[in-house]
Amino acid sequence: VDLPSTVAGAEGVRGRRPAVGEPVLDRAFRLLGCFQPGDAALSLASLSARTAIPKATALRLARKLVEQGALERQDDGSYVPGLRLLELASLAPRGHGLRAIALPYMEDLHVATRQHVLLAVREEHASVLVERLSAHEAGRMMYRVGGRMPLHATGVGLVLLAHADFVTREEVLRKPLIIEPESIRVSDLAVRRRLDAVRREGIAVMARPHPEPMVSLAAPIFGRGGEIVAAVSVVAPDGGPRPRELRAAVVTTARAISRGLLL
Amino acid sequence: VDLPSTVAGAEGVRGRRPAVGEPVLDRAFRLLGCFQPGDAALSLASLSARTAIPKATALRLARKLVEQGALERQDDGSYVPGLRLLELASLAPRGHGLRAIALPYMEDLHVATRQHVLLAVREEHASVLVERLSAHEAGRMMYRVGGRMPLHATGVGLVLLAHADFVTREEVLRKPLIIEPESIRVSDLAVRRRLDAVRREGIAVMARPHPEPMVSLAAPIFGRGGEIVAAVSVVAPDGGPRPRELRAAVVTTARAISRGLLL
Repeated sequence: VDLPSTVAGAEGVRGRRPAVGEPVLDRAFRLLGCFQPGDAALSLASLSARTAIPKATALRLARKLVEQGALERQDDGSYVPGLRLLELASLAPRGHGLRAIALPYMEDLHVATRQHVLLAVREEHASVLVERLSAHEAGRMMYRVGGRMPLHATGVGLVLLAHADFVTREEVLRKPLIIEPESIRVSDLAVRRRLDAVRREGIAVMARPHPEPMVSLAAPIFGRGGEIVAAVSVVAPDGGPRPRELRAAVVTTARAISRGLLL
Repeated sequence: VDLPSTVAGAEGVRGRRPAVGEPVLDRAFRLLGCFQPGDAALSLASLSARTAIPKATALRLARKLVEQGALERQDDGSYVPGLRLLELASLAPRGHGLRAIALPYMEDLHVATRQHVLLAVREEHASVLVERLSAHEAGRMMYRVGGRMPLHATGVGLVLLAHADFVTREEVLRKPLIIEPESIRVSDLAVRRRLDAVRREGIAVMARPHPEPMVSLAAPIFGRGGEIVAAVSVVAPDGGPRPRELRAAVVTTARAISRGLLL
């Protein structure tokens, strides 16, 4: 099903051809999604190679995506994700919608603690970082806005998993639970115990040695119906403020954002 | 060319049918782009009405977009823009790429002044707000992240226009130059004089009475080749700090971000 679209279109066997548009949209999102954090820009050849879309088709799709502003074409002919994506994303309630409500409270926490402050939501079996405030002087972090983080290996992830629906939780716990970059496998029983503690104490505390020794304290943000919507955390380096000094501030911030969501 | 795609597909007149995929992508982006800031969620009927895409086609497209995560389906069957858009947008160099470099400097300016701090780039004949830091106590603002602002009526817009290429500048100045929401028309000569001053002084100062009396001070951020990349501004309410007190801070911040882009 990955023929160039002209070939697929010319096939024309009634009833056997997939509904018009389905492969095109899939391919378009494959192109948009093949960029990686380290990429400056991708040539047509790289786009084609990464997505396994033939070059001629990739070129036609890329041109259409440039017309829509979803890709931008550089002077040297290479492509980068376009600003139009930001405009579209800005109306996603779980992205910038949530962020607009949470940001002032996150800033207060950031100013009060001078540490990293993170906001994340769950997307399937991962968490996605919606916002991150970092001070110049705070330690180095592995995660970036829009990037995915494992549910079982971060403070915000543990909070999102602890309050997720039963089916999602079991699906995640049934998979191998690996902590990267050390490739340490943790048992589902150990994670279950952690999740119990998170629910009981209303906060997750997770120490991580990479890329620098840090501790994350995360608390849940609830929606109108009492369902979990997001998690907020403060991440401090080893030797910075002690977890017990940050606890009340994180919980207070999470509750303030939950209250903000009701307005 | 806006027939339901099944009809267009069944047409089957060889050579007359548009290339497969083109109308589909256009329609998909029309669906994604029809959400407005005030919308909580849109029903299928609203999506269809706003985009003039027949309901059956809109449903099929919406389902594909939900599969891709570009739309999310609520429990009541309505749709909202999806988190996947944030993930894709996060790799746009003019969006989150620029933002990641600029944000710490913007925070410094925000902490030092306690006023709104804005970051914007030009997209065709408008500017797009890439980031906004707002204090609880700062005045109300008309603009939101991902939203468009006129080039001739905002501080950041004047900076972006003053340093735009000649062709773009003339295209913008040839159109009617209206200031909203008052619907005041300004002459292109008046804007040209302002742009001269912006280039000469390295800063734009723009007072606006709506929604509250405020003054914006904006400065240019330049890229590696000396081309304009973005503009940063501080926006203060009438009766807040005087423009002359903010001038050096804004210019310093813009230069720091320009320097950050070279690393």
